[in-house]
Amino acid sequence: MKMHSDGIVTALVLEKGEPVHESIIRASRELEIPGAFVTGIGALKEACIGYFQLESKSYKEVTLEGLAELLALNGDITWKGDEPFVHLHAVLGLEDGSVTGGHLVRAVIGVTGEIFIHKTGKRLERAINEEFGLMLMT
Amino acid sequence: MKMHSDGIVTALVLEKGEPVHESIIRASRELEIPGAFVTGIGALKEACIGYFQLESKSYKEVTLEGLAELLALNGDITWKGDEPFVHLHAVLGLEDGSVTGGHLVRAVIGVTGEIFIHKTGKRLERAINEEFGLMLMT
Amino acid sequence: MKMHSDGIVTALVLEKGEPVHESIIRASRELEIPGAFVTGIGALKEACIGYFQLESKSYKEVTLEGLAELLALNGDITWKGDEPFVHLHAVLGLEDGSVTGGHLVRAVIGVTGEIFIHKTGKRLERAINEEFGLMLMT
Repeated sequence: MKMHSDGIVTALVLEKGEPVHESIIRASRELEIPGAFVTGIGALKEACIGYFQLESKSYKEVTLEGLAELLALNGDITWKGDEPFVHLHAVLGLEDGSVTGGHLVRAVIGVTGEIFIHKTGKRLERAINEEFGLMLMT
Repeated sequence: MKMHSDGIVTALVLEKGEPVHESIIRASRELEIPGAFVTGIGALKEACIGYFQLESKSYKEVTLEGLAELLALNGDITWKGDEPFVHLHAVLGLEDGSVTGGHLVRAVIGVTGEIFIHKTGKRLERAINEEFGLMLMT
Repeated sequence: MKMHSDGIVTALVLEKGEPVHESIIRASRELEIPGAFVTGIGALKEACIGYFQLESKSYKEVTLEGLAELLALNGDITWKGDEPFVHLHAVLGLEDGSVTGGHLVRAVIGVTGEIFIHKTGKRLERAINEEFGLMLMT
């Protein structure tokens, strides 16, 4: 994991085998980020994606085998008390040209991760939403 | 609708039932945004997506039933005279792992909308393009 | 190609027939961009997308016929010595509602390109990675 930060925007370069969420959380702590939006591209492996189900208030999860092009990573960094919380959605491209995606539950870098963290001046927070049983941005 | 703005970047937090375009237009007016790019994630319902057809110079529209994960929201805020104009494209994830998307004609928040508006210092404008019959950025 | 720059964010407006990569490279030179992340939407034609194959260390490429909605363009501008290097991934929407995408090898604007280049203060660079035979961000 390498970070190139100008104080507002940080290019986070991840290498094969590095975990996506944990790396962004580590960067959040080191850079003391009050809040941020995140974008990125690259190639993942062992990507677990989720689809939220209203009835069960839980994610239906699927883990992909093999390499997937990370076509679009979008999300944000917020705080849940004194813990950084990373919320990411991913669009993934597969070898046959098909595309899948969802809430990114977890993933490991397959080739490279080129992730950009754009800090906000305002602290962004989450709290439990009782209707959905989810930590939503407040 | 809640807004957390540092003067450049605004985190726009939308709740279930709030309309996407109208909420961003309201934020554009309140924040006096001369132009912006927009990114975001969340979950939508009643999403109407369009595909532009060259022959008819119009959008072929499809409205999705039920909840869709908003995997990637991208677009911008520009001005059409004294009216803010929000142009959005969306990538949507469905329960079976499939992905669809298009020009986002309209949509309502299904669970949450975590939308980031990054202001530009320059005013961005649109005008009618005669070849396509579309309001294009100038 | 028109550019509206406030010194940090540039709105790059591309017209029908303009090439995506070459236009961003030209903007990178004119704006003397040390590094940037890129997002955008629009409609492309003649889009060539690639999927990286670990075995052959090369991209399996497919060129799309006709118009495709550019649902999400994500990537970055870095430097390879004294040459700007544009790395883009695209999610594309087709007329039947299906979605495809991949590493964007090349593409021409089909209707319009609304591309945002957000400069980083830090210079971002690439170098060859021997394991993958790819120019990766360092």
